[in-house]
Amino acid sequence: MQTLNRPQAVIFEKNCRQNINKLTAKAGKNNAVCRPHFKTHQSYEVGKWFKDEGISAITVSSPEMARYFSRHGWTDITIAFPFYKAQIKDINELTETCNLRLFVKSKDDCEFLSRSLNNPVDIMIEVDAGYNRSGISYLESDTINDLITSISRSPIINFTGFYIHDGGTYGSSGKDEVYQTIQRDLKAFSTLIKAYPDVEYGLGDTPSCSLVDDLSPATELSPGNLIFYDLMQIQIGSCSYNDIGMLVRVPVVQEKPDTDECIVHGGAVHLSKERLTVSGKVTYGQPVHVGKNGEITKIEGTSVTALSQEHGTVSGLDALKKAGNGKALDEIWICPVHSCLTANLFDRYITSNGRFLDKRVLS
Amino acid sequence: MQTLNRPQAVIFEKNCRQNINKLTAKAGKNNAVCRPHFKTHQSYEVGKWFKDEGISAITVSSPEMARYFSRHGWTDITIAFPFYKAQIKDINELTETCNLRLFVKSKDDCEFLSRSLNNPVDIMIEVDAGYNRSGISYLESDTINDLITSISRSPIINFTGFYIHDGGTYGSSGKDEVYQTIQRDLKAFSTLIKAYPDVEYGLGDTPSCSLVDDLSPATELSPGNLIFYDLMQIQIGSCSYNDIGMLVRVPVVQEKPDTDECIVHGGAVHLSKERLTVSGKVTYGQPVHVGKNGEITKIEGTSVTALSQEHGTVSGLDALKKAGNGKALDEIWICPVHSCLTANLFDRYITSNGRFLDKRVLS
Repeated sequence: MQTLNRPQAVIFEKNCRQNINKLTAKAGKNNAVCRPHFKTHQSYEVGKWFKDEGISAITVSSPEMARYFSRHGWTDITIAFPFYKAQIKDINELTETCNLRLFVKSKDDCEFLSRSLNNPVDIMIEVDAGYNRSGISYLESDTINDLITSISRSPIINFTGFYIHDGGTYGSSGKDEVYQTIQRDLKAFSTLIKAYPDVEYGLGDTPSCSLVDDLSPATELSPGNLIFYDLMQIQIGSCSYNDIGMLVRVPVVQEKPDTDECIVHGGAVHLSKERLTVSGKVTYGQPVHVGKNGEITKIEGTSVTALSQEHGTVSGLDALKKAGNGKALDEIWICPVHSCLTANLFDRYITSNGRFLDKRVLS
Repeated sequence: MQTLNRPQAVIFEKNCRQNINKLTAKAGKNNAVCRPHFKTHQSYEVGKWFKDEGISAITVSSPEMARYFSRHGWTDITIAFPFYKAQIKDINELTETCNLRLFVKSKDDCEFLSRSLNNPVDIMIEVDAGYNRSGISYLESDTINDLITSISRSPIINFTGFYIHDGGTYGSSGKDEVYQTIQRDLKAFSTLIKAYPDVEYGLGDTPSCSLVDDLSPATELSPGNLIFYDLMQIQIGSCSYNDIGMLVRVPVVQEKPDTDECIVHGGAVHLSKERLTVSGKVTYGQPVHVGKNGEITKIEGTSVTALSQEHGTVSGLDALKKAGNGKALDEIWICPVHSCLTANLFDRYITSNGRFLDKRVLS
């Protein structure tokens, strides 16, 4: 009898804890501090597993997310997103209870913060080493120098260091390519460190933190996705299926033997429309088998091939049935393409042994 | 001074009410009943605007969504998603307060419902006329006949009619192509109506309900997206910019004159990763200008070209600045690609004149 009455985001605690442990080990070898990004899981209960590993500083992507974790006892929070003026009220509220770090990009921002802040905040400068999203190019040494001078003029904002998030590594394939991509960031840090030797150098991408042994001269590591990993990270080579920390469990609602497909209750509002091209074909998720001891294995010949709002179309009905040992196909486990976006779509988690975990909901 | 401190989903009430009015007029001309799909807006406050037009029956896509609207006084609700057994507890709860319609696809489901329901429900059979998602092909007349016989054996489930959602029209371009696509559905209905003349025939897609005058022999119309429309519907030709019911308003966080881009606080967790190819280029949203009287116009030469979790990259910085009459570029209005998925990502709406509207949040 089918018992799953809606799609669930299921957390594999043992895998998550192992992933955290790998991160702290990697940071240890690099003499770096862990400041993991909590935008992926957005859960104070998952956050406790980081605390258990001795982690006390975190990274988030908005003042609202900072507020959620601040309310749950975190007091050292980096908002890894360009500060903008309309955030000032939220920032001032947050500084009542925690030490904040902001990303600042202009003298104008510094002057504004200087006259508007109630309490001191630390300032990081986001550096662009070639990913071309936000931040200041590390080659613009005059701009960086002027900005640091502006920061130093104000007693309420303290220059703390540089941060790079290189999303370019997410387009890499394998350890060598990730290694090649991250060299531009480590080179940028090596250039900056000559002028600014005594500040922090933070790196944030999951592929590098997973695959590159030597991340010097970085002094801080703040990956987010690494807690759960996902299909994209498996394709890059950052992890294997048995490292996956979150799967989506979906009810099967219709079998279509004629087309070797089935329809599941698991659509774009559960998995997100993030897509990945695997062996030339677009996929929105990979069906997997979960063994008695939590072993996760890919079910070959299957894929989530289409999503509408609540419906998912999964190819490989025969293969799915075989993987279930011929039992009625009541539900399917899916490894999502991008766990950060998938996790954001659920209002809570359930662990693989049936315990609900609170998480932050949209705001 | 920038005042927008986070991305907002902004509702243009006048446009929404006009869209509802167009739907009731279309239904009137076709002698059809309106059963609009509320999965798009998911808001009891927006729902009131439908009530104002005399609409009393609605469509949703899950028992949880039915519960939200049931709590807000709706008592005639179709769950337009294949029923599956694990939903029975939710269904029984719902039947305490409202008349439910379910989609049933097998004799097994009928027998299960027959012995498990506490109160009567109406049954629709979802028909597949060529879209190839869920439902039973209308050509399988024996299967349909057997299913109706099964339904008729139980006094607690009542056969009510047939339903088609043809997502194929969303891939159409222009009125003629939408008209061509929908003919397969109207043909399916015409075939079925010979055998089952006195039941309901429901159609659900927004392009047809917007562009096709004669939808006979459909007896019910249940589009969802039509309340807000979006960039996809503009591309199809279902609407123009001045029909758009929801835009996303995002703060600008960094200008990048070198690449004629800017970075906004508006990422995949606000817009969704739904994408559209326009003139050969992938877009995640279209920046627009909003005039003093709410006129919405496309800003030529601009596009949301990339999204990460919280960041959006918008091309056409110069064009954006010109559209803002040279004022500081504090914020941008974006027409989302697919408003159903975008709306799902916000925990509330704000109207264009500043009133917050409650909506259902993830569940």
